[in-house]
Amino acid sequence: MHIGKKVWAIAEGYIPGWSNGPDPEMTSHESICILNASEEDAHVKLTIFYSDRDPIGPYEITVHARRTKHIRLNDLTNPQPIPAAKEYSSLIVSDVPIVVQHTRLDSRQDANALISTIAYSE
Amino acid sequence: MHIGKKVWAIAEGYIPGWSNGPDPEMTSHESICILNASEEDAHVKLTIFYSDRDPIGPYEITVHARRTKHIRLNDLTNPQPIPAAKEYSSLIVSDVPIVVQHTRLDSRQDANALISTIAYSE
Amino acid sequence: MHIGKKVWAIAEGYIPGWSNGPDPEMTSHESICILNASEEDAHVKLTIFYSDRDPIGPYEITVHARRTKHIRLNDLTNPQPIPAAKEYSSLIVSDVPIVVQHTRLDSRQDANALISTIAYSE
Amino acid sequence: MHIGKKVWAIAEGYIPGWSNGPDPEMTSHESICILNASEEDAHVKLTIFYSDRDPIGPYEITVHARRTKHIRLNDLTNPQPIPAAKEYSSLIVSDVPIVVQHTRLDSRQDANALISTIAYSE
Repeated sequence: MHIGKKVWAIAEGYIPGWSNGPDPEMTSHESICILNASEEDAHVKLTIFYSDRDPIGPYEITVHARRTKHIRLNDLTNPQPIPAAKEYSSLIVSDVPIVVQHTRLDSRQDANALISTIAYSE
Repeated sequence: MHIGKKVWAIAEGYIPGWSNGPDPEMTSHESICILNASEEDAHVKLTIFYSDRDPIGPYEITVHARRTKHIRLNDLTNPQPIPAAKEYSSLIVSDVPIVVQHTRLDSRQDANALISTIAYSE
Repeated sequence: MHIGKKVWAIAEGYIPGWSNGPDPEMTSHESICILNASEEDAHVKLTIFYSDRDPIGPYEITVHARRTKHIRLNDLTNPQPIPAAKEYSSLIVSDVPIVVQHTRLDSRQDANALISTIAYSE
Repeated sequence: MHIGKKVWAIAEGYIPGWSNGPDPEMTSHESICILNASEEDAHVKLTIFYSDRDPIGPYEITVHARRTKHIRLNDLTNPQPIPAAKEYSSLIVSDVPIVVQHTRLDSRQDANALISTIAYSE
């Protein structure tokens, strides 16, 4: 089953600068959740756009056939880490159709806050 | 009135591993909310995709004509329960058009956090 | 400018059963936010779908030309109030194109939680 | 790469009337996040719609080529500030394709709450 699109974008992006609570569950973070419902592995290229410098990427991610992958953006290191407390946007390009959703956990105050939205596709 | 689509996907999925507050209202959970505005019952098949094993399903759900159903994913048992604290994605296929929305209540800290988004359809 | 669609649906719906904090700001509630960017008044009919009984409606709402209206679902009375702590879905039909977004404020615990998502349109 | 649309709308809009926590991180606010992945600068015109008076705008914003911009609506002053604790909607028109997402941080209670959703495009 080929559900999804090959090009996705997330305009919001921000890794909160501090956290409250046990690591890793309550560490402030952003995730990109990818579903690859197809029979082929998805080779995904992620590019990060900033407000004050050129885009960085691609970050290369493989999502195996008939699998999901939830990528914590805090953990990416190659080509370089995404700085905390700095605004960015994401562009995601895959060679097979995928479905992409964006989630943030923000634990800067005593109780955590969450956002999630379907990404933009075309 | 036939509003909606027959194929939906939710890339995000995670049942938080613990809870604070009275059960059932404040129990950490994920829900799939389905609207069937048509004049015919909807027979819905739900498949859960994991990061490290083959998909599980279908979970079979009937949403009667001109009714809504909010399904707590924590409560599904057949073919097997969805484990807590583990990432997954959902694929929803119906025989009549439906509308699907995804919601999580996370009460792991003192106050609950919520997310919700329209699912992806095609 | 005619931006939007005439038919919208929101699969999620639930007015939390209790609240913490000052009224009206912190009262648990659900809102349907409607933008009418056109030059004509929008006559909107809202129908509420339940899990265990026939749909109720229409609730009739006018959104004037070039205006927004944020409707607290808790406050609707005609044809009948929407009960708290009960799941529902919404169908929104307008005679001119509108844009619809759904928001909930849940203050059942010490700090409020929020969700919002664009509604489904076709 | 030209990803996105030229016309976007956000039906929800509300700047909470008070805040808890350090400024600027925890100040209650609303943001419009814009990704311009194209090779040309985007000239964006933002119009704010109210429930009880004519729309105000345009607010003019430039998002440079291959950059993101997260605009705090609290900070806009020209043609006039957006009042807090008042409902509004936003219409965003650009001369090159962009991607738009809406986010609110609400810190009126002890812990902050967050919402975010992709805007409506056509």
